[in-house]
Amino acid sequence: MTVTHPKGFRASGVAAGLKSGGNADVALVVNDGPDYTAAGVFTGNRVKAAPVLWSQQVLRGGIVRAVILNSGGANACTGSQGFRDTHATAEHTASVLRGGAKPMMIGAGDVAVCSTGLIGELLPMDKLLPGVSAAAKALAADGGTRAAEAIMTTDTVAKNAVAQRDGWSVGGIAKGAGMLAPALATMLVVITTDASADNEVLDAALRAATRFTFDRIDADGCMSTNDTVLLLASGASDRQPSLEELTAAVTEVCHDLAQQLIADAEGATKHIAIEVQGAASEADAVEVGRTVAGNNLVKTAFFGNDPNWGRILAAIGTTSAAFEPDRIDVAINGVWICRNGAAAEDRGKVDLSGRDVKVTIHLHEGEMGATIWTTDLSHAYVHENSAYSS
Amino acid sequence: MTVTHPKGFRASGVAAGLKSGGNADVALVVNDGPDYTAAGVFTGNRVKAAPVLWSQQVLRGGIVRAVILNSGGANACTGSQGFRDTHATAEHTASVLRGGAKPMMIGAGDVAVCSTGLIGELLPMDKLLPGVSAAAKALAADGGTRAAEAIMTTDTVAKNAVAQRDGWSVGGIAKGAGMLAPALATMLVVITTDASADNEVLDAALRAATRFTFDRIDADGCMSTNDTVLLLASGASDRQPSLEELTAAVTEVCHDLAQQLIADAEGATKHIAIEVQGAASEADAVEVGRTVAGNNLVKTAFFGNDPNWGRILAAIGTTSAAFEPDRIDVAINGVWICRNGAAAEDRGKVDLSGRDVKVTIHLHEGEMGATIWTTDLSHAYVHENSAYSS
Repeated sequence: MTVTHPKGFRASGVAAGLKSGGNADVALVVNDGPDYTAAGVFTGNRVKAAPVLWSQQVLRGGIVRAVILNSGGANACTGSQGFRDTHATAEHTASVLRGGAKPMMIGAGDVAVCSTGLIGELLPMDKLLPGVSAAAKALAADGGTRAAEAIMTTDTVAKNAVAQRDGWSVGGIAKGAGMLAPALATMLVVITTDASADNEVLDAALRAATRFTFDRIDADGCMSTNDTVLLLASGASDRQPSLEELTAAVTEVCHDLAQQLIADAEGATKHIAIEVQGAASEADAVEVGRTVAGNNLVKTAFFGNDPNWGRILAAIGTTSAAFEPDRIDVAINGVWICRNGAAAEDRGKVDLSGRDVKVTIHLHEGEMGATIWTTDLSHAYVHENSAYSS
Repeated sequence: MTVTHPKGFRASGVAAGLKSGGNADVALVVNDGPDYTAAGVFTGNRVKAAPVLWSQQVLRGGIVRAVILNSGGANACTGSQGFRDTHATAEHTASVLRGGAKPMMIGAGDVAVCSTGLIGELLPMDKLLPGVSAAAKALAADGGTRAAEAIMTTDTVAKNAVAQRDGWSVGGIAKGAGMLAPALATMLVVITTDASADNEVLDAALRAATRFTFDRIDADGCMSTNDTVLLLASGASDRQPSLEELTAAVTEVCHDLAQQLIADAEGATKHIAIEVQGAASEADAVEVGRTVAGNNLVKTAFFGNDPNWGRILAAIGTTSAAFEPDRIDVAINGVWICRNGAAAEDRGKVDLSGRDVKVTIHLHEGEMGATIWTTDLSHAYVHENSAYSS
């Protein structure tokens, strides 16, 4: 049920001392081939961490043989020394994999690097590099779950997923609290498949999948410096699914992981789906959903079990989407408490006692729609993000 | 020190039973002339409350003789009945002022209306209209502070301000928690002057003043359906200041009131000034300041007394402003903890024990700057906005 489920991959997770608590903090995923094609999507933040700048270059080469990941430090806003440290990490990873029990033909340019943790501090390379060596020694065909554990920061559970197909599969691991919303500076995702696919197909499948999954979750509206989603293909199944088949399987894994991220978002007490219907365009639907998801007054209302549709309308009013204020309908958990922009069904009928909340917004402007997943804004969120530097 | 300080104005505040606690909830400000010129700025929210739609029409006529304001209900998202209620409120106000102890020549089209409170519910007109009558009877030349008290919602103190000039003055009252950030659906501001000025001059002075004051505070990034700032001139001083002089005095009052709003913002424990320097344009400076001010991770860090400059850089990275990540400097309370996009002075030197916080961001792209004032994100904010429907 993880990144080593597809054939042709090994992984590991070890404790190198980057985290103060002694938990695992270095993860390694290697592709044993025969293919080494890959695709990646990265944060849209213009302040990008050193490992993001490095991995973007690696992806341009079209081959990824290994991904080295660390928690305990984001290596973001660390200047030229931070980039040199990322480069040294990739060089060291390639070096130990060339000289390992199962020697690989690999250079630093084949190694993607991901980091997560506090922004603005240099990584302790004297701990990280021995950790990389230990991770290489610990590589195992069933090591995916240990890799998932080693990239956790404030995550309370490790995130793993698999989509099984006839003769091939897609697997993945993830950490963080949202694509645009990583509460601790980073969503990191590694997805593997034993399907055979060239870089263009992988890229198209990954972009289509992330567009409807990681791009549509938003825990706190804050965009990370480190977000990275990688897709690696080994071709070990000797199957070559169509782009459609591959996209469906990658989307299934991304959706599963994205929902796990929202379910485990910092301090959340609600898992909220905001479904926008009747929009003039998909872009309008996404903008309205995102704006409502990011509104602190809406989020605190849900924390208080308050079906406050007025705050939802006030949030919609700040968008540039096509709508008429007096034609908007809003339902919360199936009760249409707002029709034509004014009060309708009794708000007392709305049951918000459960964790799952469904908000339905109908704009009556067209046929397009989108769903954004988010969380409430709770005391625990404020506590987690104020009591600890992260 | 309030809206009745300038000559030619009377005001009042009475309890009409709109608020459950029995506090004052209806305020009236009248202009006794000889001039009745006026200007107004309103919320940019596309979902506008009925009183905003009404008052925008009144302002087009160029004359405002009275402003009737109520707390205890926003009259937003209330459909055509809500607009009829606003109209009836203006008609009733004009009627009682025509027949009062000091009869005024006034029609409904000379009466601006402002409402604040819960969105989505109709106002109890059976209580509001008698309240309007009582407010008209209670009008007094020293009634400004009672008007300020009657428009309070979650405000803990009434907001009054005056700018005294030689022979003329500007006065004002306000309620709410921020122009783009009214935590309880509304910032309402009434400003008066006994200067003589035509509508064009008043409009220019008000827009210039709000641009650097109310437009640059942001408590929680949420834009209200009801925000209204009105400027009324009586000409009773018989002085005609230049546009520059008038703008300076109106700006002084707006700045004073805006700072009072931020100081009293819901749940705030910090009063934060974000000064952006070295921007390529004023628009860039404002965008960077606003984005940092609106970032929940930055706001929770300040609540926790954490000088987390990495979160500030991550927020800057989401803007479209001109900058290079490795040229940004950031100081918190005068300590330059980030230089060239990386760690600089020791973060331990930053003293965040006080309520006032100054963040300085230097982009090194030009000569333009702007300051945005905001607050932290605290447990009390979450409590106030989740425990009560508002």
